[in-house]
Amino acid sequence: MACRSRITPVLRRARTASFIRPVNSSPGASRSALRCISTSSPRHFTASSSISAKFTTDTYPEIKRDERFAQITPEHVKFFKDLLGKDCAVIDGVTAEVSTDEMEPYNGDWMRKYRGHCKLVLKPGSTEEVSKILKFCNDNMLAVVPQGGNTGLVGGSVPVFDEIVISTSRMNEIRSFDDVSGILVADAGVVLEIADHFLAEKGYIFPLDLGAKGSCHIGGNVATNAGGLRLLRYGSLHGSVLGIEAVLPDGTIVDDLSKLRKNNTGYDLKQLFIGGEGTIGMITAISIQCPQRSSAVNVAFLAVDSYEKAQQAFKEARQQLGEILSAFELMDLRSQKLVQKQRGSKSPLEGESPFYILIETSGSNSEHDSEKLGNFLEDVMGKEVVSDGVLAENETQIRSLWSQREGVPEAVGHWGGVYKYDVSIPLSEMYDIVDDVRAKVEDAGLIGDTDDFPVIDVVGYGHMGDSNLHLNVAVRRYDKRVEKILEPFVYEWIAERNGSISAEHGLGLAKKNYIGYSRNETLVKLFKQIKNLYDPKGIMNPYKYV
Amino acid sequence: MACRSRITPVLRRARTASFIRPVNSSPGASRSALRCISTSSPRHFTASSSISAKFTTDTYPEIKRDERFAQITPEHVKFFKDLLGKDCAVIDGVTAEVSTDEMEPYNGDWMRKYRGHCKLVLKPGSTEEVSKILKFCNDNMLAVVPQGGNTGLVGGSVPVFDEIVISTSRMNEIRSFDDVSGILVADAGVVLEIADHFLAEKGYIFPLDLGAKGSCHIGGNVATNAGGLRLLRYGSLHGSVLGIEAVLPDGTIVDDLSKLRKNNTGYDLKQLFIGGEGTIGMITAISIQCPQRSSAVNVAFLAVDSYEKAQQAFKEARQQLGEILSAFELMDLRSQKLVQKQRGSKSPLEGESPFYILIETSGSNSEHDSEKLGNFLEDVMGKEVVSDGVLAENETQIRSLWSQREGVPEAVGHWGGVYKYDVSIPLSEMYDIVDDVRAKVEDAGLIGDTDDFPVIDVVGYGHMGDSNLHLNVAVRRYDKRVEKILEPFVYEWIAERNGSISAEHGLGLAKKNYIGYSRNETLVKLFKQIKNLYDPKGIMNPYKYV
Repeated sequence: MACRSRITPVLRRARTASFIRPVNSSPGASRSALRCISTSSPRHFTASSSISAKFTTDTYPEIKRDERFAQITPEHVKFFKDLLGKDCAVIDGVTAEVSTDEMEPYNGDWMRKYRGHCKLVLKPGSTEEVSKILKFCNDNMLAVVPQGGNTGLVGGSVPVFDEIVISTSRMNEIRSFDDVSGILVADAGVVLEIADHFLAEKGYIFPLDLGAKGSCHIGGNVATNAGGLRLLRYGSLHGSVLGIEAVLPDGTIVDDLSKLRKNNTGYDLKQLFIGGEGTIGMITAISIQCPQRSSAVNVAFLAVDSYEKAQQAFKEARQQLGEILSAFELMDLRSQKLVQKQRGSKSPLEGESPFYILIETSGSNSEHDSEKLGNFLEDVMGKEVVSDGVLAENETQIRSLWSQREGVPEAVGHWGGVYKYDVSIPLSEMYDIVDDVRAKVEDAGLIGDTDDFPVIDVVGYGHMGDSNLHLNVAVRRYDKRVEKILEPFVYEWIAERNGSISAEHGLGLAKKNYIGYSRNETLVKLFKQIKNLYDPKGIMNPYKYV
Repeated sequence: MACRSRITPVLRRARTASFIRPVNSSPGASRSALRCISTSSPRHFTASSSISAKFTTDTYPEIKRDERFAQITPEHVKFFKDLLGKDCAVIDGVTAEVSTDEMEPYNGDWMRKYRGHCKLVLKPGSTEEVSKILKFCNDNMLAVVPQGGNTGLVGGSVPVFDEIVISTSRMNEIRSFDDVSGILVADAGVVLEIADHFLAEKGYIFPLDLGAKGSCHIGGNVATNAGGLRLLRYGSLHGSVLGIEAVLPDGTIVDDLSKLRKNNTGYDLKQLFIGGEGTIGMITAISIQCPQRSSAVNVAFLAVDSYEKAQQAFKEARQQLGEILSAFELMDLRSQKLVQKQRGSKSPLEGESPFYILIETSGSNSEHDSEKLGNFLEDVMGKEVVSDGVLAENETQIRSLWSQREGVPEAVGHWGGVYKYDVSIPLSEMYDIVDDVRAKVEDAGLIGDTDDFPVIDVVGYGHMGDSNLHLNVAVRRYDKRVEKILEPFVYEWIAERNGSISAEHGLGLAKKNYIGYSRNETLVKLFKQIKNLYDPKGIMNPYKYV
């Protein structure tokens, strides 16, 4: 206890208390309320309502409609209506007038960055219906876009031209749950938050959590290999998804809905659909291994004097907190200043440090976890790895500390626009990209405090525990000069360090042309080979991915 | 503490002490010494030396040599010798005499169940050499078998006819290790135990552990998607392997050796090689996420009165031990009796119970872990889920308790032979197969205590935490009547319950013809499509897998 005197008053006070969160109230659940609408229909448009939704075809005039695809005819529509029966299962803008309100949620993304010309939305109620739809589309050369909650960030789930949207929204049943093994089997259209609430009642947790949980569908999560907040602890979906049911473009139903943790009988084909972004088939159900829900959650917010010290703190946290560490998030001072400026609030800590860290622990024993976290904090403050810190005493404080991290994306975009890069870079060099980009913008005289300068600031934050950085350039207005500095510089910088130009957001339309920065020619060739193998006519989610 | 009186004296004594294992001395490391020889050459023949090694072609006369494959000529041998240079890199039984001692370790498996007619072993020293070898073989229609430590159980890594063995034994460098992220990059031929010892010095652990660790190669582990003892805690290789380097049959080097935990840019092709058993390409290096090594390890050995109570105990262990649970192994009484009979030893517990459980915890804080385990034991004994138990006080006791579980395979085979099934079945029905098989053998009058009966006993044990059962039929001699009872009954039984006929051992030659019991026709068709895509000439590990 020799180091106790180094701990700030706030921290010292906090350490005397411990906090137990009710099993069915995760930090994710409370946080998601801040920015999600709990509905299975995609209606996120408030987020960027000030930006007009341009057609993707106007933004990217170089993308041409693939003329091999047929135009949708009234006969096609009749087939789908006869097949799906119910009125609510077809939104028909081909043979009827449909209000923009009804069609837009399927045609545009929630950032209002992408907007398609889709006139037909199909909502099958079963895997067999998906199979019949896809077979018909494949036979008739009708292009399709599988769509879940439509919460993606790279334009992967919205049409570009007149592709038919096949929505998973009516396939939303939990099929089974085994409360001994923790294995959940559910339709692709189950909303992530609903799955997580269902599991909470059983004492389990969905091994994925992300901001859009109130809207996103688990099928879409798997199709895009979503990363999110629990990856550090529970690993990626490539490990936790045990099986999938999917439909190939020719209507073949791939029933690989295994409920087994171990099954070494053949190639693990389901993995191609995980992160395949609906380009080789449509996922209709998943089977997933769910971990026990932790009864104890603690959150600490710490200041460090350099990025080197942040790395040291991460190493110590992995060692000392080991099995209970569930989040290690980094935020630079600039990102925090933007949050405080936007909110008119104060930092949880006195003074200023170049970097802040949010640490979350989740475990089965509140006392043990508090002791481990307390010892860790004493140790890193004693060694002067961490210069200051505060520990949440109750759920309100946990939420408040998390909001310092989760408020960044909103704050960064508050004064106009933001250029966003979701990248993965080996940890030792991860933050360098922020300094390098900032230096280039500064050298060009484009950054400043007044309206004369387009750039407000260049900030970095993200899932440090997963080497996943969000590089954001906050701007007052979009400016070609800024874009010229950023691209291809950012991608080249990442490629030189064998990083990833899309750590968790996927390729979609946004990154399709930049894949070469993260993948070599051989791999891209092999990707195209797989695409051609499963979707030789190219009807699945065209104009995207590879 | 109301339940303390229910705990047996042994347990009560044990609970007063806690145990800290040195970081670089894992239970795996000590256990492996019992049955492995620490060498990178495959020389396991002592294990089943009493059984003569029949040629696979004699055991399976229905398998015919694929006449599309060329015979190896002196010109072929000259090419390989010129390419590989060193004498030690080629074992040439084509143009020269080679002693059986030198060739047999590559031609046969360590169980002496499979034996090929291979006359040429190549040991490339680099990925480029592997590429040139495969391209030459593909161009000249020479069939090959990639081989690591050759410790498999299904005949997957040995030739059937005259296929050329390409051994990874000379590719055994650790390429890099990042001690902040815990990411290891290493050649395919690194021995698992050597990798684990290397990591131990850094405070990390390889996320896989298995009996053959002293001989098996990590490339082979990945190629066969090995499961083993740490899967319950650290998940499967599909989650922990971050990247691979592999060579396709046409010589293409697939460089997907990512050191990133997150990289959503394209299909996750590496997954096809994980568990692909060398049938579409040869893995030459891997990149893998390694967890922190736990400083505290505890082991308890418990008795339960029924399989239902074993399931209850598992559920409680997951809940109460949560993040520190690292093994939950089941053994039936019959398996334990065979261990004691073979060794002339006593059970760690008084009396007899139909089932025993071994629980291991691994965590970062010895006191916390002991307290959690103590509380758990009090709880399950208080509820009469567990009837008796003992807790290891030191490393010798840990090893002794583990040997009750790990000694089963040897004991079961001690009196003659054993029919082995490595299966996965939904947990609620998992043990029923043992009772059902035993009843059938009993009905047929084939089981008994004297030499008149071929069957000694039918036993079940395994990784209960992963729903992975080892069903073993211990016999005095092999008998067609027993085989007729077992097959296809066992496979049909598993298929009816959507189980897996090979949970962790793979398909190889042994299960090739039985894949239909675990995979539907559509999947098998898709598997063959993948095989044909990557290996259109079929030179990679023929006669096996699908």
